Amino acid sequence: MTDLFKALFEPSRIALIGASADVGKTTSRPQRFLRKHGFAGEILPVNPSRDEILGEKAYKNLDAIPGEIDHAYILLNGKAAVDALAACGRRGVKVASILAGGFADAGAAGASLQDSLVRIVAETGIRLVGPNSIGTVSTRPPMALTANAAFAMETLRGGEWGLVSQSGSLIGALLSRADARGIGFSRLISVGNEVDLAVGEIADLLVDDPRTRAILLFMETLRDGDRLARAARRAHAAGKPVVAYKLGRSDIGQELAKSHTGAIAGSDATFDAFCRRHGIARVSMFESLIEVPALLVDRPPAGGRRVAVATTTGGGAAMVVDNMAMAGLDIAGPPQGLVDWLRPLGIAAGEGKLVDLTLAGAKPEIVSGTIERLLADDANDAVIFVVGSSAQFNPELAVEPLVKFARSAKPFAVSLTPAAEKSLALLTAAGVPAFRQPESCAEAMAVCLMRPAPQSVPALAPPSAAALGALQAGQAAGFDERRAAEFFAALGVPVAGALAVPDARRVAAAVTEVGGPVALKILSPDIAHKTEAGGVALGLTDGQSAALAAREIERRVKAHNPSARLEGFLVQKMERGLAEVILGFRRDPLVGPTVTVGLGGVLAEIYKDAATRLAPVDEAEAREMVAAVKGLAVIRGYRNLPQGDVDALAKAITAFSTLAHADFAAVSEAEINPLLVKRAGEGVVAVDGLVVTDS
Amino acid sequence: MTDLFKALFEPSRIALIGASADVGKTTSRPQRFLRKHGFAGEILPVNPSRDEILGEKAYKNLDAIPGEIDHAYILLNGKAAVDALAACGRRGVKVASILAGGFADAGAAGASLQDSLVRIVAETGIRLVGPNSIGTVSTRPPMALTANAAFAMETLRGGEWGLVSQSGSLIGALLSRADARGIGFSRLISVGNEVDLAVGEIADLLVDDPRTRAILLFMETLRDGDRLARAARRAHAAGKPVVAYKLGRSDIGQELAKSHTGAIAGSDATFDAFCRRHGIARVSMFESLIEVPALLVDRPPAGGRRVAVATTTGGGAAMVVDNMAMAGLDIAGPPQGLVDWLRPLGIAAGEGKLVDLTLAGAKPEIVSGTIERLLADDANDAVIFVVGSSAQFNPELAVEPLVKFARSAKPFAVSLTPAAEKSLALLTAAGVPAFRQPESCAEAMAVCLMRPAPQSVPALAPPSAAALGALQAGQAAGFDERRAAEFFAALGVPVAGALAVPDARRVAAAVTEVGGPVALKILSPDIAHKTEAGGVALGLTDGQSAALAAREIERRVKAHNPSARLEGFLVQKMERGLAEVILGFRRDPLVGPTVTVGLGGVLAEIYKDAATRLAPVDEAEAREMVAAVKGLAVIRGYRNLPQGDVDALAKAITAFSTLAHADFAAVSEAEINPLLVKRAGEGVVAVDGLVVTDS
Repeated sequence: MTDLFKALFEPSRIALIGASADVGKTTSRPQRFLRKHGFAGEILPVNPSRDEILGEKAYKNLDAIPGEIDHAYILLNGKAAVDALAACGRRGVKVASILAGGFADAGAAGASLQDSLVRIVAETGIRLVGPNSIGTVSTRPPMALTANAAFAMETLRGGEWGLVSQSGSLIGALLSRADARGIGFSRLISVGNEVDLAVGEIADLLVDDPRTRAILLFMETLRDGDRLARAARRAHAAGKPVVAYKLGRSDIGQELAKSHTGAIAGSDATFDAFCRRHGIARVSMFESLIEVPALLVDRPPAGGRRVAVATTTGGGAAMVVDNMAMAGLDIAGPPQGLVDWLRPLGIAAGEGKLVDLTLAGAKPEIVSGTIERLLADDANDAVIFVVGSSAQFNPELAVEPLVKFARSAKPFAVSLTPAAEKSLALLTAAGVPAFRQPESCAEAMAVCLMRPAPQSVPALAPPSAAALGALQAGQAAGFDERRAAEFFAALGVPVAGALAVPDARRVAAAVTEVGGPVALKILSPDIAHKTEAGGVALGLTDGQSAALAAREIERRVKAHNPSARLEGFLVQKMERGLAEVILGFRRDPLVGPTVTVGLGGVLAEIYKDAATRLAPVDEAEAREMVAAVKGLAVIRGYRNLPQGDVDALAKAITAFSTLAHADFAAVSEAEINPLLVKRAGEGVVAVDGLVVTDS
Repeated sequence: MTDLFKALFEPSRIALIGASADVGKTTSRPQRFLRKHGFAGEILPVNPSRDEILGEKAYKNLDAIPGEIDHAYILLNGKAAVDALAACGRRGVKVASILAGGFADAGAAGASLQDSLVRIVAETGIRLVGPNSIGTVSTRPPMALTANAAFAMETLRGGEWGLVSQSGSLIGALLSRADARGIGFSRLISVGNEVDLAVGEIADLLVDDPRTRAILLFMETLRDGDRLARAARRAHAAGKPVVAYKLGRSDIGQELAKSHTGAIAGSDATFDAFCRRHGIARVSMFESLIEVPALLVDRPPAGGRRVAVATTTGGGAAMVVDNMAMAGLDIAGPPQGLVDWLRPLGIAAGEGKLVDLTLAGAKPEIVSGTIERLLADDANDAVIFVVGSSAQFNPELAVEPLVKFARSAKPFAVSLTPAAEKSLALLTAAGVPAFRQPESCAEAMAVCLMRPAPQSVPALAPPSAAALGALQAGQAAGFDERRAAEFFAALGVPVAGALAVPDARRVAAAVTEVGGPVALKILSPDIAHKTEAGGVALGLTDGQSAALAAREIERRVKAHNPSARLEGFLVQKMERGLAEVILGFRRDPLVGPTVTVGLGGVLAEIYKDAATRLAPVDEAEAREMVAAVKGLAVIRGYRNLPQGDVDALAKAITAFSTLAHADFAAVSEAEINPLLVKRAGEGVVAVDGLVVTDS
């Protein structure tokens, strides 16, 4: 256990700077909650005007405290909090937390105060939680260092899930919701504005925490992505699932997440890409965050999505199945052995995929025999049992045949159709993943089976001299279409054959060399949208008509933008394909380089049909991206349509994604639109594109 | 109150046929539950082998009971149940219910037993609930005529929601879930296989029930659509919302709903169309069924989708907002008056759309002043307040400033972030719609604001002689493409100019008359897929090439299908449009005639992008359909694309939907594919289509 972990979660001596003796005040809470929940160490309240606070000796200032201080919770506001942190830094306090908001979460003035915190951390080496942190809690041994009113609860339930939250108030909400159904936590920490210690580093600490078996994240943004990635991978290796709920699935939600914490919320697709790459299970329902872990602990992602469902209540099970099917899971029917075993008992299970034991089968030996046979069946990957009214009135009886499957090798979950808190608590206590909403049961099973394992980050070979040269050329002279095409070609993406000519007189000869029909495009670093500027002519078959078209283009472009520098024309071979694909590269401020593939054209844009992954991607992942774009069915052999060259497309995506290399750091954005996909074996070809550099 | 209603929900004398004295048996439950929950009428157990059951005088058989019997619950199985129903019919019992399953829900043998029930109902006029009905319950006056174990609960809570369920076991689940959060029901009825009394008729009874203010439906299929439509419209007029949860949103869920009850589950889109037309609010989360009504009662659908959100817990509110935005709602920011009122209180509400009072604003007068100002603001259509931890520890204090808004004219809902059962119950008791999941709060608000009012069913003019003639011609000779086109034209859908010629020699002259370029298509009642049979040639500009193509087509078609009857060629003007639309008509076995519009082409098929409505539709509804198809953005002025002729498209949809007229009953299916949409003002034109008739 590191010193940091110990100071943070298991400190022996805690200073409370700005502690209050007035129990009506928030600043009295940490002291009261520490004592209430049995903190065994020393509490050191600091308050210039008192000698004693709530029965504890108080100190005028930090320097009056003798000996080492593991953790100081600063309960002061604004400038006073900054000064207190400086004092902690000077004094050698290992970790400080700051309760107050009003820093970067509150506009420009706050941001400058927050800068002072950053400086103190850098200068003194003290580690900081917050500001805007409502506290840090451990349950065994108990250490409730928090101002969160939710900890006024009578007993603090222990457990094995560690919760890291960017929202302080939601810690209380999750605590109460978990407690209501018999679930406790090992640690709970509110990270606030994450000036220093952020979600990733804390998750990383929890990977090594023997008391924590699952790491839950409530997120509004992502500040230390690299660290979280590392933590998620180490957690996976340790058999500890990392489960995240993140705000900002809708656009307005993203705005809110931003205004709420002063953070930049990333687009939802890029966070999904981050989770997928690093093996984080993302949930969409709030309570799933506390309900899902039981199903994931000690069960690495296994592949397979076939779930067998047995029940005594057909309607209740049908709801779970309906939701699972919408989440992309398949339902596996019962094995013949089970059908044969049930028949003499008067139960006909074999007509549908659902094993409906009906009320007649609501007997412990039938339920347990059914589940055993389903768990032993190779034709499914997981089993769900849906309990009916017995859960409500005979919890012990209803639960008894289920608890023995708590440690099943295969995922096994129970969904309760009525409100049955007692059964829920009994199952939870026995370690059986149990759900009270059909929707969350379905989401949990989908997450359990379909979450990705962390994927290896493809190694990037050093860029070729040609690619670096093309980048330099583009940066020097501006990335017009020709230079963009040269750069993409150097990366390894096939581009349409083309010749650049300096003026209209050379066009005819170029057509002969390239071979008609050709497209003719104006070259200018000043014109971003060539078509709108009248700078494009298509389908020119011979030199004469092309030369004519070139002069026409010149006239139009000059009329459109008299000051544009015209650098001649691109004479490009006209290409045809089965489908037009759009390929995009971006450096996301939160997750870093990403690559996106979608179907080109206006319809794909309307349907927002695209797949985004962290860049670079290898060919296997590129192929998964192609499979994830619905509209690309048109090149995957849909109906009787001809197969497109998916191999070549995957290679092109992979090549394009090497833009993630550090040597290309100047490229902030790039796009190929369209990339034409030809028939299988005939390749792909980029027809147009752009490169945006920082410089 | 009708006699039927009284016999069903408020009977004075109840016979229990097959009642048991063995409390371990299901068949003892109705008698025990009736007494347990205080039924004040007479219970008349029938059992040939006993004189007394559970303290009540028992009768050897039905005829031994003197006087009138309002309601008989038949607790026998199979043939014995059928015989008992016959006896009830003879005896003049007003309503009978049958508990047993094993009828149409259990294959062929059961189906024939069920036929006997149908016959008895028809012959004797007795009204029947079930078979497979777990019972009928009223709460005031109490009448728990049910075998559902859930009614073993100590007290049966009264309430104002009436629940009609096709699943018996889910009545228990809903009862327990509602009870756990302080919600009761007026009536609960399990309709089983609906041999006679079905969901629609019972809902219709509840419209006139003074104890029922909302009608909740748990559905697996739809058996009496017309009756339910009528009930929903009458309920709307009476200010009583009808809320439905229906299984079968996924394909597999549809299968299950089918195997579970022996019913045909309709496709989900057609059920949605049914709900939309008749003003039924459909929910997707199970608990929404009991949570949503409070928000809808006495509030007719109002239009508008702007929701203002205030909170003391930013993270909790952000979850609600995120889910609302995904459901299509807009978030309305605070009015300036509220911002100005909060500023001197030290609360900065005006930076984001969310009014985050923070902990500092968790004071009753601030909360209540904020909500007042939001409710008074014209810039929103509804208000949500999201409560934080105070709901958990100070329920009275947290709830106090909220209860006064229970009867607000504008929809007002409260979402509780922590687990706070006490607050939930207090709010519910006060009549404030309160939610414990951010997801269900968002769904409820979406349903509240976006549910449709019942739409008038467009009147259908008598079909024209031309249309009837075209139908007869098609039925007589087979609907080839030409006859289908003539039929569509007669309905009022513009079709491409065309001439039919009996053989290849007449093709050239026809081209001259129609005007090139033309499409040439084989005419044959035996060839459904002309293109695959080689029966089509496109883009023919002159008579000579067309004649040549005709002979080539003849050769190919004969090779493809030597026995096909060839009836000449269709010479059709080639048409162009901005978009290809597909128009479909179907008679759904459950909801009746439907019309579907989608974008044509393979992508639209892949994205399953279409709008389905009950037919006929008027032009306003047709326009809504066009707006509901995402991909039709291409003709709605998306980006800089030219506007398509949406007016003409709406007119064509309306004309096509008149196929719903009874005089066209022989048409089981029809499709126009493609219907080309031209530029605004230039119309639409049908290029190909088919008609399927029953005969």
